[in-house]
Amino acid sequence: MTIPIMEHAPATWILKVNCPDAIGLLARITGFIAQAGGNLLEVGQYTDPIANRFFTRLAFSGGSVTEAPERFRASIGAHLEPLDAQWSLRRAEQPLRTVILVSREDHCLADLLWRWRSRELNIEIPAVISNHDSARTIVEREGIPFERIDFTNRPAAFTELGSRLRALGAELIVLARFMQVLPDELCDEHAGRVINIHHSFLPAFVGANPYRRAFERGVKLIGATCHYATRDLDEGPIIEQDVARVEHDHDPDDLVRLGRDCERIALARGVRFHVEDRVLLHGSRAIVFRD
Amino acid sequence: MTIPIMEHAPATWILKVNCPDAIGLLARITGFIAQAGGNLLEVGQYTDPIANRFFTRLAFSGGSVTEAPERFRASIGAHLEPLDAQWSLRRAEQPLRTVILVSREDHCLADLLWRWRSRELNIEIPAVISNHDSARTIVEREGIPFERIDFTNRPAAFTELGSRLRALGAELIVLARFMQVLPDELCDEHAGRVINIHHSFLPAFVGANPYRRAFERGVKLIGATCHYATRDLDEGPIIEQDVARVEHDHDPDDLVRLGRDCERIALARGVRFHVEDRVLLHGSRAIVFRD
Amino acid sequence: MTIPIMEHAPATWILKVNCPDAIGLLARITGFIAQAGGNLLEVGQYTDPIANRFFTRLAFSGGSVTEAPERFRASIGAHLEPLDAQWSLRRAEQPLRTVILVSREDHCLADLLWRWRSRELNIEIPAVISNHDSARTIVEREGIPFERIDFTNRPAAFTELGSRLRALGAELIVLARFMQVLPDELCDEHAGRVINIHHSFLPAFVGANPYRRAFERGVKLIGATCHYATRDLDEGPIIEQDVARVEHDHDPDDLVRLGRDCERIALARGVRFHVEDRVLLHGSRAIVFRD
Amino acid sequence: MTIPIMEHAPATWILKVNCPDAIGLLARITGFIAQAGGNLLEVGQYTDPIANRFFTRLAFSGGSVTEAPERFRASIGAHLEPLDAQWSLRRAEQPLRTVILVSREDHCLADLLWRWRSRELNIEIPAVISNHDSARTIVEREGIPFERIDFTNRPAAFTELGSRLRALGAELIVLARFMQVLPDELCDEHAGRVINIHHSFLPAFVGANPYRRAFERGVKLIGATCHYATRDLDEGPIIEQDVARVEHDHDPDDLVRLGRDCERIALARGVRFHVEDRVLLHGSRAIVFRD
Repeated sequence: MTIPIMEHAPATWILKVNCPDAIGLLARITGFIAQAGGNLLEVGQYTDPIANRFFTRLAFSGGSVTEAPERFRASIGAHLEPLDAQWSLRRAEQPLRTVILVSREDHCLADLLWRWRSRELNIEIPAVISNHDSARTIVEREGIPFERIDFTNRPAAFTELGSRLRALGAELIVLARFMQVLPDELCDEHAGRVINIHHSFLPAFVGANPYRRAFERGVKLIGATCHYATRDLDEGPIIEQDVARVEHDHDPDDLVRLGRDCERIALARGVRFHVEDRVLLHGSRAIVFRD
Repeated sequence: MTIPIMEHAPATWILKVNCPDAIGLLARITGFIAQAGGNLLEVGQYTDPIANRFFTRLAFSGGSVTEAPERFRASIGAHLEPLDAQWSLRRAEQPLRTVILVSREDHCLADLLWRWRSRELNIEIPAVISNHDSARTIVEREGIPFERIDFTNRPAAFTELGSRLRALGAELIVLARFMQVLPDELCDEHAGRVINIHHSFLPAFVGANPYRRAFERGVKLIGATCHYATRDLDEGPIIEQDVARVEHDHDPDDLVRLGRDCERIALARGVRFHVEDRVLLHGSRAIVFRD
Repeated sequence: MTIPIMEHAPATWILKVNCPDAIGLLARITGFIAQAGGNLLEVGQYTDPIANRFFTRLAFSGGSVTEAPERFRASIGAHLEPLDAQWSLRRAEQPLRTVILVSREDHCLADLLWRWRSRELNIEIPAVISNHDSARTIVEREGIPFERIDFTNRPAAFTELGSRLRALGAELIVLARFMQVLPDELCDEHAGRVINIHHSFLPAFVGANPYRRAFERGVKLIGATCHYATRDLDEGPIIEQDVARVEHDHDPDDLVRLGRDCERIALARGVRFHVEDRVLLHGSRAIVFRD
Repeated sequence: MTIPIMEHAPATWILKVNCPDAIGLLARITGFIAQAGGNLLEVGQYTDPIANRFFTRLAFSGGSVTEAPERFRASIGAHLEPLDAQWSLRRAEQPLRTVILVSREDHCLADLLWRWRSRELNIEIPAVISNHDSARTIVEREGIPFERIDFTNRPAAFTELGSRLRALGAELIVLARFMQVLPDELCDEHAGRVINIHHSFLPAFVGANPYRRAFERGVKLIGATCHYATRDLDEGPIIEQDVARVEHDHDPDDLVRLGRDCERIALARGVRFHVEDRVLLHGSRAIVFRD
């Protein structure tokens, strides 16, 4: 469901809850929303039978929630307290502050900029940060600040990157073909808020040069994986994957070209799922309530 | 989620509700289930913003539901009464009595039989009915009765078909490439319980000879559509569709061959969604809470 | 196979031949190429058994072809004369002069511009022409001339469009969501050189508002069709189609959004096949020697 | 293109040639076929620019080829001798003697049997061999001999298997979920003639329990890979791959179920490509001239 992004539209709220399973959880949560006058629009619920854990995402609108969101937030916090729950409440219309990191390849960046400009992704972009200057033009002409960080001295560069992300108030960080491995401290500081695109269908071709290796292995499908960045490179929870068929007459350059479309699509979908609060994390797995 | 089909497994129940939208509906329903000691396993909810209608499917297990299902049924009926709701409650482990109708092409039938035999589809098949004798062998060797009805006199044949379906206690009727158009009375009598597979991606190529016409049009994708049969041929609610890529060197016979795989997959998925009570109907649209 | 676009790379030539079938045709053509010292890189051949027609596309490099292309062209023309053949010979490295027409929706245009800038499509764009001003910025910032034609008076507008296309030397015209129906004279003048993107998987939803109608029909797949424009609207030879899965909770705006990705992908592929001389036309069918 | 399998249809021949690249190769080969009165139906040609190697597959019909195939074979052998070529010539209508090996999981076997019975695959099946008895019924009821080999003593079992394959005159061996690793000698003896289906999209999840590991990794796509068996397990040339989308609520048993459809489709396609002589091998890569 597309959330209309209009100034005077009725507010839509997204509540996500992740807690140990028990009887009556959804009744309790939906009961609270109904008492507050909220009308449910879309509910996803999933119980992990192995971890015995309860996950839900509720989209609802109207009622006293909108009139006094902070009071509602405090009240639902109290309500969920006994459940030992991780939870979040966000207004769907509120754009997410998203900093994009990019290196030389600009196809994912260009795609995200287009989706931002056409309001397909409900984000605001306080800055694009890069270790190269090549993307400056396509960023600045959109009226978005472009910041270059020199990575000759990597520890210093990451320190600078960390303070820039803090200063910019980044709620989401997208690695749109950013070819530097984030240090553990940055992964931890922004856990669950850094989305990466890897240019293979993981766990195939973990690491460098996946297209060259796909060519050598003679695969008939190549792909791309959108996942959260964690300390373990290419091992974070997978949000979305996409594949494309290849033939024997596609050389490594063709795979790069065909793979770009997979990367753009998988990244755009993964970012949208995150921005629309459709993702809940549990260990190495992402629960994605797709629309 | 695969429902384990074991004799002593805890019972799983599926409740579907379809009613005019209002605040508090899901709280009311899940509250009732929680009171009865039921534990939610998977919940889908959708509000149609245009029709202003509420749809939900809840899978839950355990509690007093299982101990006294008829009492629970009566009680939930009373509970839902004021909502002007269409609803159903079924035990997931209970196989659905499914009669398959087939003409000469047996690929969909063979596929359904295989999925039944391997317990992928939780159905029982009291009979396969055909207007030809060609499928007799592959049916009878599975220990399933095969009934042939002579369609020379079509009105008489449909009268006989109608009484056989009643006598067999058919809860679901699958038209697995059955090339006779059901009369309105049978469509109405079994509304929402007759699933057809059409050999094109509807609404393209409504009617006869879709593959020949697809070849002549030079399409690059062919497909199949699994839908409920209604009085309006090929116009019933769509449950599932599948497509396959074709090239210029595929002649009409190739399209038939490639299309068979689409038909088998789309029909098997559509039947599974119905059998697992994942489908709710609203006018010409099917709400499918896919897993 | 990606043709490397470098100044001093050995020239690659594409020869396409379409003629009545006979024994020895490919031997004759490849014999001629071998005599001229050309080395085959990729050959596709197809005989239409119904039309009894022969189609081939040959990519080859080197030899006397490159040294004296015009003499080679004349010579192959003489050689093919007795075959009653339609044929073309082009140097693969030569960019195709491509004029893009667009109305308000700019996603296909933006995608083509990105693929042009990144050299994924071997085209040059002498101008983008529109009946609106909305795409001016994203065109001019690429250094490409943007021409607006006022369509209040449609006959006059099309006369102007026709002379602009002639003046610009358009070898290919791409209707990238251009919402004006080309008059028969323009279709005829540029037959086989006008590529359109239709926002449905044809022949489903011919005509206006396909996404709205797809929503109302409750389909589970939407799509896009890239085809040559002909006098019969939406009836021209299909080059490429793409589909995306949709669910019950996608409203018409979601279908528009999801469809945009289909449109961009199908159009980009179709244009690439044309630009790489991979398409031969025969009546209402496009023979596409895909890589 | 479907080759009609009729007694009196004009014969169709498939010639495959794989040799070092040179100028004039295709002219030479097609010239020879034309001289013999053969009419080309479908030609695929590919030059590997890295290995500098020429690959072609030609389907043609009629002429003196059919009248005296052995003389044609000897003559083309002499003609190709100077090229240092690997080549093969087969009559398309001639069914390929195919022995199927299976263990307990019978979905791939059932699918192949259905495609054989419906003449979709042009094979004859002298026997199905298994290390279990579970598939006996579905094989024998088709009138196909079922042979069980006891694998308690593995070396002895493989010796027996080897002699059975020889005695049966196996031209193709299909491992349709046969869970025993073939010894090197059998791989070598039948190099390029043993097709396996692996239940993951290789190179992801090489080895045992791929679905369980896919679940644990939280992938969003699962798949299957059809490849030639070689000494290096799961490393042989890939003929075909297929994938299916999975969601967070699919448990390992669901992945097994969804994967079965991928396995059946990928194996059936791969076997068909081999049976129609569409595959040429070069090191670890399979050149597949798909239709």
